[in-house]
Amino acid sequence: MTATTAKSASTTTLLFVLSAALSYGSARGFSSVSSAVLFRNNHNPTRSSSSTTTTSLGGTASPPTTTTVVAVGGGKNEAFQRSLLAARIANSSGKKKAVDDAVVVGRGGGGAGDPNPVNIGWDTHRPVDKAPESLVRPGDGPDGNYPMRARFERMIREAQISITDAIEKIDGKAKFVEDSWVRANGGGGMSRVLRDGAVWEKAGVNLSVVYGSMPQEALQAATERGVDRAKGMAPGERVPFFACGLSCVMHPRNPHCPTMHFNYRYFETDGGVWWFGGGTDITPSYLNVDDMRHFHGTYKDVCDRHDPDYYPRFKAWADRYFVIPHRNETRGLGGIFFDDMNDRDPEELFEFAKDAVNSVVDAYGPIILAHKDDPYTSREKEWQQIRRGRYVEFNLVYDRGTVFGLKTGGRIESILMSLPETARWEYDHRPEPGSPEAEIMDAFKHAREWV
Amino acid sequence: MTATTAKSASTTTLLFVLSAALSYGSARGFSSVSSAVLFRNNHNPTRSSSSTTTTSLGGTASPPTTTTVVAVGGGKNEAFQRSLLAARIANSSGKKKAVDDAVVVGRGGGGAGDPNPVNIGWDTHRPVDKAPESLVRPGDGPDGNYPMRARFERMIREAQISITDAIEKIDGKAKFVEDSWVRANGGGGMSRVLRDGAVWEKAGVNLSVVYGSMPQEALQAATERGVDRAKGMAPGERVPFFACGLSCVMHPRNPHCPTMHFNYRYFETDGGVWWFGGGTDITPSYLNVDDMRHFHGTYKDVCDRHDPDYYPRFKAWADRYFVIPHRNETRGLGGIFFDDMNDRDPEELFEFAKDAVNSVVDAYGPIILAHKDDPYTSREKEWQQIRRGRYVEFNLVYDRGTVFGLKTGGRIESILMSLPETARWEYDHRPEPGSPEAEIMDAFKHAREWV
Repeated sequence: MTATTAKSASTTTLLFVLSAALSYGSARGFSSVSSAVLFRNNHNPTRSSSSTTTTSLGGTASPPTTTTVVAVGGGKNEAFQRSLLAARIANSSGKKKAVDDAVVVGRGGGGAGDPNPVNIGWDTHRPVDKAPESLVRPGDGPDGNYPMRARFERMIREAQISITDAIEKIDGKAKFVEDSWVRANGGGGMSRVLRDGAVWEKAGVNLSVVYGSMPQEALQAATERGVDRAKGMAPGERVPFFACGLSCVMHPRNPHCPTMHFNYRYFETDGGVWWFGGGTDITPSYLNVDDMRHFHGTYKDVCDRHDPDYYPRFKAWADRYFVIPHRNETRGLGGIFFDDMNDRDPEELFEFAKDAVNSVVDAYGPIILAHKDDPYTSREKEWQQIRRGRYVEFNLVYDRGTVFGLKTGGRIESILMSLPETARWEYDHRPEPGSPEAEIMDAFKHAREWV
Repeated sequence: MTATTAKSASTTTLLFVLSAALSYGSARGFSSVSSAVLFRNNHNPTRSSSSTTTTSLGGTASPPTTTTVVAVGGGKNEAFQRSLLAARIANSSGKKKAVDDAVVVGRGGGGAGDPNPVNIGWDTHRPVDKAPESLVRPGDGPDGNYPMRARFERMIREAQISITDAIEKIDGKAKFVEDSWVRANGGGGMSRVLRDGAVWEKAGVNLSVVYGSMPQEALQAATERGVDRAKGMAPGERVPFFACGLSCVMHPRNPHCPTMHFNYRYFETDGGVWWFGGGTDITPSYLNVDDMRHFHGTYKDVCDRHDPDYYPRFKAWADRYFVIPHRNETRGLGGIFFDDMNDRDPEELFEFAKDAVNSVVDAYGPIILAHKDDPYTSREKEWQQIRRGRYVEFNLVYDRGTVFGLKTGGRIESILMSLPETARWEYDHRPEPGSPEAEIMDAFKHAREWV
């Protein structure tokens, strides 16, 4: 790894988180916080064995996390909620003001009906040679009031390292280059980008930690349970939040190697509302049923370790999310996608997110190893470029994180890291009936079950 | 010209018009219609000599238009307004209902705060081998109540032919292929696309005529004079409108040949509100000051023939409109852009739009002829691809016509005709200081005066 300096900074992940919050979510209700009891978490080093993941491709397993939230009296979930509310009360007169001040309203840029987007700070970031040990505020550490913040950050930092190490080993030629940044009001991030590799044209893994605030209306519009999110706030008061996530897109050179994307994130308001989101999905240019069975099967196994309902639910969610409406087709062949998850013990959701992010190399690596040296024709390369054009269309037009980021001031190079190095648009291109291109188009038009 | 059949149809132009109506405009006020006098226009074959344009590159001049709106008593503008209002009254109980019914609310697709977009008809178009003589409704012909509709359509159809003829001659290899369509409730369009030419990788000229309706709120939100646009409508009543436009993007192969875009359009509600919009702009990858002087100088001359205030005003408008905010740079080196123009006799504005669209080949052709055979390096080609990536970013993220069209159901292939055949994204690309790439970046970052 080489450390370089970033000119400007922000995060694609928070933007994803934020806009996810603003735009979609599950309909699961979660009861609002009903009592404000000051509550300190114990630490418990136990962890679900299901979250121990070793990659078969050189990736290192994440070391065990040593901080775990455990309830003292009452349900775990209720206790966790209480701790957040208590923290909010403890902090309400102090640093929240600073958080509010650090967040300004963006320039808009959308259509006439867009809500004022929340700008996470055009100029609140500062490039650094190396990110500090932790990007969360001191008070959000393991012994602080919001211990999940530090835990989640630590978990995804470890995943960022293990995933990029594994990908470098597969590529064999190029190395990831890191750009790091911090912000005056707390938070920051690290982009790791590999360019001009033997296997990948472009691969990026981006970590970010953001402290911001948003209007209550935006929070309330988020989901059916949105009203809970602003609980305890005075009318007109902006809602301070924390967001932390790891996102990644990898575009291989060979048209028989699929592009892969993932994003895992944790969101928490100072007012005691939190949720997890994320997913991993795959975008091949040519259909290989065995590969899809491996990829989806890996994630079905991950899901099943945590809840048998997860895979069917999150697979269907990915099929819905990654649609390009104007093409009436999906960007790729799906995977899992979830958001707004807070319907159970946060510990369970943390372990699930950890298991899922640490399964990326298991799910994706074998497919790349199997096809990285496949011969291909110029026609196949051109078709890959056309599919990348669709990838660009999805990301620039529909991906809420990207669009939100572009319009409200993220670190542009981190946000657009997701775009392929090259893409192609042909007027009214239609694959020849019966061709391999037509075969996968059918799968883009009609979502299939792979496992 | 070859006629082929389009699978699906709609228009990029209306979308531009419509979204332009929804989103921006000049602050010029125009007094609302105050009296409802049934008024029939005389026909007057005179036309401004300034609108007679002959191209030096093989384009044919548009034949004189024989229908001209002239006032009978009162100012021309007032008379024109009265005629529109009278027409509305005459039509109010009849076909308007059919128009309303033909327009459905789109799927949304935008962020949570998006207004319901007006869908101009996912499935109201029908491909035809050849477009009819006129795409306006019979009652909107030269002798009907809305004569400007037929006049504008005729003018841009002639321009579409003369421009594509001239471009084919310059290219010398590829021909434009035409796709035509009509809609059940009136209107339709023709896309002319040239692919794989000797000079152009991709060039498209798209004409469209649309009858639709929009919510009054959308109309009223349009501009400071927006409230006038819904005048005479009952609360909650949708506003029937007509829109007609010609739009074009041409992407040459040689990195020393600039991309060129234009769009000219006329918008009119059945309730007596109308405006003109349009512009031509240029997007080079390398700076050639003489070329920019020629391009801007040509349009300054066009503007000056009509109003000495036009060029400075419309040049500045283009500089503002074609900004890519997240890059803090412009897409190209501007030209002219105007919208919401109704502050004078519509005849004057018609003649200006006609002069401007018929000056495209004069402004652009000589630059292409001068550089189409320039030698270039792979580095220069790569830089052109990177700039095309920026073109894609602008069009997919910011161009209101494109975004609106994608989300509400235009003819996708016509809308995305504007995208280059190939584009490129490199992580954190920065031109070497002092290089030709850095030179033009400076012009993208700081708008210049060329004439």
